[in-house]
Amino acid sequence: MITGQNYIGNKQSAKGNKTYKTFNPQLNIENESIFVEATSEEINEAVHLASEAFKTYRKVSGEKKALFLNTIADEILALDEALIQTFCMESGLPEGRAKGERGRTVFQLRSFADLVKEGSWVEASIDTAQPEREPLPKPDLRKLLIPIGPVVVFGASNFPLAYSTAGGDTAAALAAGCPVIVKSHPMHAGTGELVASAIIKAAEKTGMPNGVFSNLNSSGIDVGTQLVKHPDVKAVGFTGSIRGGRALYDLASQRQEPIPVFAEMGSINPVIILPNALKNGSEDLAKTYAGSITLGTGQFCTNPGLLLAIKSDTLTQFISALANEIVKIEPTCMLHPNIIGAYESNKSKMVSQKGLTIVSDFENNVKTNFARQAITTVDGETFLENTHLHQEVFGPFSMVVQCEDTNQLELIISKLEGQLTGTLIADDEATNYPKLISALQNRVGRIIYNGVPTGVEVCPSMVHGGPYPASTDSRFTAVGINSIKRWVRPFSYQDWPNELLPDELKNENPLDISRLVNNKQTQNKIS
Amino acid sequence: MITGQNYIGNKQSAKGNKTYKTFNPQLNIENESIFVEATSEEINEAVHLASEAFKTYRKVSGEKKALFLNTIADEILALDEALIQTFCMESGLPEGRAKGERGRTVFQLRSFADLVKEGSWVEASIDTAQPEREPLPKPDLRKLLIPIGPVVVFGASNFPLAYSTAGGDTAAALAAGCPVIVKSHPMHAGTGELVASAIIKAAEKTGMPNGVFSNLNSSGIDVGTQLVKHPDVKAVGFTGSIRGGRALYDLASQRQEPIPVFAEMGSINPVIILPNALKNGSEDLAKTYAGSITLGTGQFCTNPGLLLAIKSDTLTQFISALANEIVKIEPTCMLHPNIIGAYESNKSKMVSQKGLTIVSDFENNVKTNFARQAITTVDGETFLENTHLHQEVFGPFSMVVQCEDTNQLELIISKLEGQLTGTLIADDEATNYPKLISALQNRVGRIIYNGVPTGVEVCPSMVHGGPYPASTDSRFTAVGINSIKRWVRPFSYQDWPNELLPDELKNENPLDISRLVNNKQTQNKIS
Repeated sequence: MITGQNYIGNKQSAKGNKTYKTFNPQLNIENESIFVEATSEEINEAVHLASEAFKTYRKVSGEKKALFLNTIADEILALDEALIQTFCMESGLPEGRAKGERGRTVFQLRSFADLVKEGSWVEASIDTAQPEREPLPKPDLRKLLIPIGPVVVFGASNFPLAYSTAGGDTAAALAAGCPVIVKSHPMHAGTGELVASAIIKAAEKTGMPNGVFSNLNSSGIDVGTQLVKHPDVKAVGFTGSIRGGRALYDLASQRQEPIPVFAEMGSINPVIILPNALKNGSEDLAKTYAGSITLGTGQFCTNPGLLLAIKSDTLTQFISALANEIVKIEPTCMLHPNIIGAYESNKSKMVSQKGLTIVSDFENNVKTNFARQAITTVDGETFLENTHLHQEVFGPFSMVVQCEDTNQLELIISKLEGQLTGTLIADDEATNYPKLISALQNRVGRIIYNGVPTGVEVCPSMVHGGPYPASTDSRFTAVGINSIKRWVRPFSYQDWPNELLPDELKNENPLDISRLVNNKQTQNKIS
Repeated sequence: MITGQNYIGNKQSAKGNKTYKTFNPQLNIENESIFVEATSEEINEAVHLASEAFKTYRKVSGEKKALFLNTIADEILALDEALIQTFCMESGLPEGRAKGERGRTVFQLRSFADLVKEGSWVEASIDTAQPEREPLPKPDLRKLLIPIGPVVVFGASNFPLAYSTAGGDTAAALAAGCPVIVKSHPMHAGTGELVASAIIKAAEKTGMPNGVFSNLNSSGIDVGTQLVKHPDVKAVGFTGSIRGGRALYDLASQRQEPIPVFAEMGSINPVIILPNALKNGSEDLAKTYAGSITLGTGQFCTNPGLLLAIKSDTLTQFISALANEIVKIEPTCMLHPNIIGAYESNKSKMVSQKGLTIVSDFENNVKTNFARQAITTVDGETFLENTHLHQEVFGPFSMVVQCEDTNQLELIISKLEGQLTGTLIADDEATNYPKLISALQNRVGRIIYNGVPTGVEVCPSMVHGGPYPASTDSRFTAVGINSIKRWVRPFSYQDWPNELLPDELKNENPLDISRLVNNKQTQNKIS
């Protein structure tokens, strides 16, 4: 049952008087539950509990953290229909998507559980002493990764489960040994509360300290601002708009003690179509891309908002095939009236730009909150001159840029802002474009060959992140087990007695993990 | 020969009219060479060349980068007496230190050469495709670390070689595949120019692109400011004061595209002396610490500026032993009149604080620019109340805080700012202080048992960095091979053709490196 209250550690609390409701965009009505925004006092209490919890949680063994994470996954599954229904009511997304996203969320939690249970992720490194070394003896040094402290996670509007309350950021931070305070996303506060209840249940069942997790309701920017400024908060995870992410980054970097913010933000995910790729017809490609552009009503961070190619008759044919395919797809619902409002307004602003042509705009009547997908086109010169055209239109919208030649195509790529992904559509010609591929690589975090950017596989080799503004720190990924690196710092022990070392660094290697010992990777004990 | 010119890529250049000289603090006179500060045009040219060089340098093989780094080391050694003499003339440090630091610099360069020649440092990771997976096929994903782009390095005043022109930051960035622009430290501009000439010679000999390295003279903040704001600069390394490092961090985070700054800044390196450690006399400990406090005239970042212990007769004995020992040590020269000026003024300001007692101040006449070492003491309550007492006095100065009890000691530790190191001096009692050790660990990057914090071993298990303000990002170390991680970002290839992949990710593993293949670390090929 949804209470509308915050979780301040294990306890539900609703001391505030600012309330709000979520919205069902499919039915175009408000949902019933009333959510009570966290007060300043509740925020401080959540951070205080997180700081206290950190003292013990940072030392909890990998095995126990794995049990906690797996129990969270179990408790999320146990929410069953209540969770799926709430997800759909608060997002307008279909049931299949809700279940798929739940599956992804559970998979992420279990992946991190496996990682910390195995234990080698701490990058244990040991350099043994050389007391006889000249001119100075060499001390014994041992290093491992330790958690950074309480982490604040801002849930994403577009992934109510996988990138929200118990999503990638939370799972990674809890796996690292960091308590988490979630600033719940107001558009799916009920989904958030249900997931929070699962986390709290799991924390209680597995004996985790009170404060290891809190969930704070918030309808505006005040709760998030107070959290990011709080001196006991040590890092921030965010998924959302450039404006929102940048605001948090600025707050965090202006603190007396600046803290890291990993914000995964906007991206138009350029797709480069090389000439030969279109020579044998373009219907299949058009169909594939119409699907990718409209997937999840265009609300994926990896949505292909920009297609780049060299002017030709075959390109003209591709554009009209894409236009045909996209109107064949029935419009679907966006997440919230605010999101559809922004979509329509950004789209209007974009198509009013000089030189931009609408190739296809879904013109039939569509239901309220349903997005009319659109394809536009522009020539390379105009695109280069008008950087407004480089901005994201969040939704099922894409722009085909018709370049004069390879040089212009390459120049355009090099002038793009940082992106999550870049895609190359090619026949057998890619080897002829090393500079173009190099320019693309320099602007993105992941490049795809003859595929679509949508679909972010959860695996160790995935990078979800990229040069700013795709993310605020391109040195980290937001997806996959390596995303744990955002919330840890290296720490070294010098000449520390064996019995006082953490298990990961003890001579006898009791956890049987892989370690770098005197520059050699091994699972051996130290004799 | 020192020309006083900048290196803009491989070419010497001196277009400016702002000039300055370095200073010999031992003789208290200016050195002869005249240095010409880089102009705005020269700065832009250096960044432009670095950006162009990045296009090819980022793809240079590990083997060739290793040759480049080793040749830099060779060329530095070939500078021979000219370098040693210039180092001493510009720093007031003795010849033995100059040679020791040169050895460390060469060792660092060769360590990175070994690392990139072996090649596994890129953390190659491969997840092969599963085309039959349900409900969706799994794509082939392959990841590695790639260089971030041109890096600006600010040399440290206190390490004219090891943390300056070809020091740890530069060596790590060049190893990563990033061109480097050094903002030369004005106090040792001649040393900087000589080392720069060695790097340029090595770049030319080994066929590295023009612009892979530049060295810019600068006497104030203008050159550095322009560099950090330049849109084509992608990261910054700095070693120095909190004020300087924070100013650069603020500039970098206020850019339209924020960039990472790794600044290693101030630290007072707390040393906790547990009661039993003093029970068998404290003369040896006092002697050891007098040596550590005065090492390099107290100009090491890991200088122990704060000793914490619980009030007792044995502590009183230790303090007076330390006072005796420290005046036995002959005063030595500081780096520059500005540094000795700051030392004397900060020391005066510190000893004028209410409740602080000077236990020992070197009162004999000392030579100009030579530092009078000092030991002070204060009680725990006063220290807690006055945060001015927590600040660093850069030089041979230390403060002993006499705490009421273990609780107060622990409270003081928890209230300290972030530190590079923390040290525990104990007999057989450490197991009785888990909370205290935990609090210490939470404030530092490295903890030392029964030793001194000075002396930073260059090895994989070293962490030189720590919570702010010890550094601006505790997630990285500035010393050791892992410091390369500051200048790289993960990058992934999805379904990319084998022949177009970098060697590190090709099926046949031509570099024979260790890779994570389908979650298993192996050197095997992929069949």
